[in-house]
Amino acid sequence: MTASTTQAPLSTPPVAITSAPAPTPANSLPIALSMGDPAGIGPEIIVKAWQRLLAQAATMGTHPLPLWVAGSAAVFADLMAAHAPEQQMEVVASAQEALTLWRQNPRNQALVLVDVGVSEQGLLPGCVSAVAGQLAGRAIAIAAEACLAGQARALVTAPIHKVAFELAGYPYPGHTEYLQALAARHVGCEVAQLPVRMLLANDELQTVLLSIHVSLREALDRVTLDNLGETLRLTHTGVLQGSGLHPRIAVAGVNPHAGESGRFGREEIDIMTPAIAQAQAAGINVVGPISPDTVFMRARRGEFDVVVAAYHDQGLIPVKYMGVDDGVNVTLGLPFVRCSPDHGTAFDIAGQGVASPQSLLKAIEWAMRGSK
Amino acid sequence: MTASTTQAPLSTPPVAITSAPAPTPANSLPIALSMGDPAGIGPEIIVKAWQRLLAQAATMGTHPLPLWVAGSAAVFADLMAAHAPEQQMEVVASAQEALTLWRQNPRNQALVLVDVGVSEQGLLPGCVSAVAGQLAGRAIAIAAEACLAGQARALVTAPIHKVAFELAGYPYPGHTEYLQALAARHVGCEVAQLPVRMLLANDELQTVLLSIHVSLREALDRVTLDNLGETLRLTHTGVLQGSGLHPRIAVAGVNPHAGESGRFGREEIDIMTPAIAQAQAAGINVVGPISPDTVFMRARRGEFDVVVAAYHDQGLIPVKYMGVDDGVNVTLGLPFVRCSPDHGTAFDIAGQGVASPQSLLKAIEWAMRGSK
Repeated sequence: MTASTTQAPLSTPPVAITSAPAPTPANSLPIALSMGDPAGIGPEIIVKAWQRLLAQAATMGTHPLPLWVAGSAAVFADLMAAHAPEQQMEVVASAQEALTLWRQNPRNQALVLVDVGVSEQGLLPGCVSAVAGQLAGRAIAIAAEACLAGQARALVTAPIHKVAFELAGYPYPGHTEYLQALAARHVGCEVAQLPVRMLLANDELQTVLLSIHVSLREALDRVTLDNLGETLRLTHTGVLQGSGLHPRIAVAGVNPHAGESGRFGREEIDIMTPAIAQAQAAGINVVGPISPDTVFMRARRGEFDVVVAAYHDQGLIPVKYMGVDDGVNVTLGLPFVRCSPDHGTAFDIAGQGVASPQSLLKAIEWAMRGSK
Repeated sequence: MTASTTQAPLSTPPVAITSAPAPTPANSLPIALSMGDPAGIGPEIIVKAWQRLLAQAATMGTHPLPLWVAGSAAVFADLMAAHAPEQQMEVVASAQEALTLWRQNPRNQALVLVDVGVSEQGLLPGCVSAVAGQLAGRAIAIAAEACLAGQARALVTAPIHKVAFELAGYPYPGHTEYLQALAARHVGCEVAQLPVRMLLANDELQTVLLSIHVSLREALDRVTLDNLGETLRLTHTGVLQGSGLHPRIAVAGVNPHAGESGRFGREEIDIMTPAIAQAQAAGINVVGPISPDTVFMRARRGEFDVVVAAYHDQGLIPVKYMGVDDGVNVTLGLPFVRCSPDHGTAFDIAGQGVASPQSLLKAIEWAMRGSK
């Protein structure tokens, strides 16, 4: 199951994304970070990012950025000893305790960790294992449920390894589908009523994908009136919530030159043009379909805020072209803001202390901005 | 008919690209420029590029770059009056006369024009017309036949308008197919024995496309063992001839993450891996298939010299992402070097004097380097 298989037809009213309980103002809540696969670079980049944010706050004379980590205490104890020997870690048993701790002392300089409470026996850096998958999955559940329960303002997820996640028995191909399932259960609806889309962003470009992890042949079958309509709605709402601005959206065509008036493919005429007209009638600021080979360049130059890409690589090639250090993934459509760095577990460099927290820091920055 | 429809099966020996007669050393021949659609920006950017090259030569104290233009004398007379009033134009009737003129005086400061000899009555800037298409087609024929006859070292084509070209009765969707037909006739073979591919290049990236102007659905059907094998052969040979170096070629996968071991599509396993192995066995330096969303970024960073893209937009999105001013198209597989700027006729700004010759200058630079 992938994000785009779960889209609801336009006739099914999607669940409002404001349905999460909010017992306190959202901006007085911390961000929850899930550690990712502990055999990968996730925990290491979290410690490094946290140190960087702490140092920034000290320089600026402000409170540290409010965040806590769902993770394995033993793994983080080792990392703190290696990378932050002079700093403290406070291990708590629940998201509620983490919230209470932060409310009692917003100036707290310690790394607050909600322990996943699962044994890490057999865990080795750089190795795919069911143990690592289980720890990773548990961390996601703790952090996501905290967001759903109104104990955290946004979720930032460090990367998991799909095979380890599968070995641990999770029936989801990735984060997004697991989060959809958790949210649907919390809200009490079908997963199909919580359609989501991926937004990929860096400092120059934002793109939302019509489909993700399916073959290109199957991706072409996913270019439908319903999918594009739903994607435009989620893009408009998601970016509006994050930035407070009505985004200028461009839709990239499917075919070379957007089909050149039907000469090379008809998706633009039969599907995209009517879907765009419907979205415009609903008040969404959207244009297209535009030739795929120039629409990203035009967005980079500032003509559009977001490009809706017709398939995975159409959007990801330009987002990654200038480098992946600044890339952020955002899931649109969940009842909470969820961001992640745009890289994987990097098992090849896990445990070596050389991983960069840059993309994770960008994800945290996005999560802060998007959950105001 | 498109470039990729004309690929020969691997079992048919392709015609050697050295088959053009060479009565004199290639490096003592000028470059032939075809003016493109005279209602577009082609003639204007040619005059501007020529002035720029003339000024550069004066600054460097060298001979002007040897070139002549196949075009309409009346159109260029007007442009010279507007943009280069102090400079001369010499109109001749044939490529042979242009060559003779240049041999007699390599220091010639005049723009040498081989007149297309067709009436330009009814020609208006920015308007699609059969007249303009006819003038454009005649210019291509003069310049290409000069290359085939050994009277010019390389061809640089300014953009044509496809509809005008069609209105003028040319049964070709673009330059490439017309040039293939002219070359096949000259060499005395079938068009299918002269397979060609497009190489798109800018200062950072070079990419060769498996297919061009077909729908994305049809492009998927063009990912075949024969097409990829032929493309790798033409890429290797073409870049080797242009640069003298054995290029490091990467093949981009078709599907997200190059199919992730068959999870999202099997083209990588069933077609690309065997085609790459065959090419490696034939001495071509090629790796892949590599995940499409990172291979262009890696090439940009210097890991590969050329990326073979599985379809039009996969290659064109990254090539154009940083801007189109420096983009060059090169046709691989013809019996002569052919380059063109990576933009169209720009009818919206035709006749206004504001068009930039930058991409055309890059194409001329490529043609000089590639035809040594």
